[in-house]
Amino acid sequence: MNNKQVIAKIKGGLVVSCQAVKGEPLESSYIMSKMAYAAMLGGAQGIRANYVEDIKAIKKEVDLPVIGIIKNVIEGCDVYITPTLKEITALVEVGAEIIATDATFGSRPNGETLDEFFASAKDKYPNQLFMADVSTYEEGMHAAKIGFDFIGTTLCGYTKETKGTSLPNIELLEKLSKDSGKLVIAEGGIWTVEALSSVFKTGIHCAVMGSAITRPMEITKYFVKAIKD
Amino acid sequence: MNNKQVIAKIKGGLVVSCQAVKGEPLESSYIMSKMAYAAMLGGAQGIRANYVEDIKAIKKEVDLPVIGIIKNVIEGCDVYITPTLKEITALVEVGAEIIATDATFGSRPNGETLDEFFASAKDKYPNQLFMADVSTYEEGMHAAKIGFDFIGTTLCGYTKETKGTSLPNIELLEKLSKDSGKLVIAEGGIWTVEALSSVFKTGIHCAVMGSAITRPMEITKYFVKAIKD
Repeated sequence: MNNKQVIAKIKGGLVVSCQAVKGEPLESSYIMSKMAYAAMLGGAQGIRANYVEDIKAIKKEVDLPVIGIIKNVIEGCDVYITPTLKEITALVEVGAEIIATDATFGSRPNGETLDEFFASAKDKYPNQLFMADVSTYEEGMHAAKIGFDFIGTTLCGYTKETKGTSLPNIELLEKLSKDSGKLVIAEGGIWTVEALSSVFKTGIHCAVMGSAITRPMEITKYFVKAIKD
Repeated sequence: MNNKQVIAKIKGGLVVSCQAVKGEPLESSYIMSKMAYAAMLGGAQGIRANYVEDIKAIKKEVDLPVIGIIKNVIEGCDVYITPTLKEITALVEVGAEIIATDATFGSRPNGETLDEFFASAKDKYPNQLFMADVSTYEEGMHAAKIGFDFIGTTLCGYTKETKGTSLPNIELLEKLSKDSGKLVIAEGGIWTVEALSSVFKTGIHCAVMGSAITRPMEITKYFVKAIKD
């Protein structure tokens, strides 16, 4: 699939995130590959996945564009979603059609700035599609300016500046869709059909859902809370 | 856990059904055991599961009461959830704390009636807890009369008589809770926190949710439909 085909394939659709970080009950590349397969059969138009091993296993099961990330928590740094060129290279090598990386203004490894990091990634992999995971309008506009292909609202609610924001952040999606000149991806905090319908009215290119579909522990918590309330 | 403890453990709680029938994308006792583990960590108070192998695997991962079933489609019969004494025996042997069986008025193997079938099961396993999976008020009242411990609305919407019923069927739950003198279990068609809250206002003992938590293909379909609508 070339970049144009990737962009067309996910357009207007649901990308299902199939992730289980180390220590989670479903931590297993095998299980994640079957989750992705189930999502594909259910109508997903793309998969978002974490770790090289998971993406490898998923690519054997499904024929959908993959938004690849590598979560790597580094002491003293705010950013952990694909934080350095090392993770970018690994994701290019495993064939992730889109690579998502933290594009917030948080602190990065080795004192590198986002602009330096992204310039080196683009320089090394000029034909790779990149998605910026941001938390605010300013971050989204900056990511658009420095050349990201997609702007995702993944980190809204998860940075110091945005903690406690009601999700999904419809106003942020509307403003980025209108102003960034890039393809906007709604990600984070979509738990109901009403929320999903509302993000699709903002002008986005596609939406990503994870926890509400592929994290049975989180889904159980969500419903148990409803009983207790 | 004795029967009294089992009844107390699931009271007021969410039982998570972890099933993947043959041919489904997550068909794997290993995956079902991890689903059950995730559900337990998320606050589930019981697990419903299908097949001896799945229940064995689940019992290694979780310390929660299991409602066991064996789905067995038999040519020419309407009932397929634990349809004969053979499946009951297998579920007793694997240690299912509660055994659920179809208790509708549908046709059964070898021309056996529900009353004959259930009398032989009770005769052989007098201390076993049994759940009746029914579709209507009349079936629920009959199951109560012949000695089932729990009345579940599992099959409402899935029999000829009830096809197309809007789920969950609140009126059915209310009437059975009021009239049956047994512990009523809400199961089937619960997809939202609103639906879950509403079933807990009817006087039920507990609720079972499956697809919305442990079937990512069905969950994906549910959300993709929302986008298309």
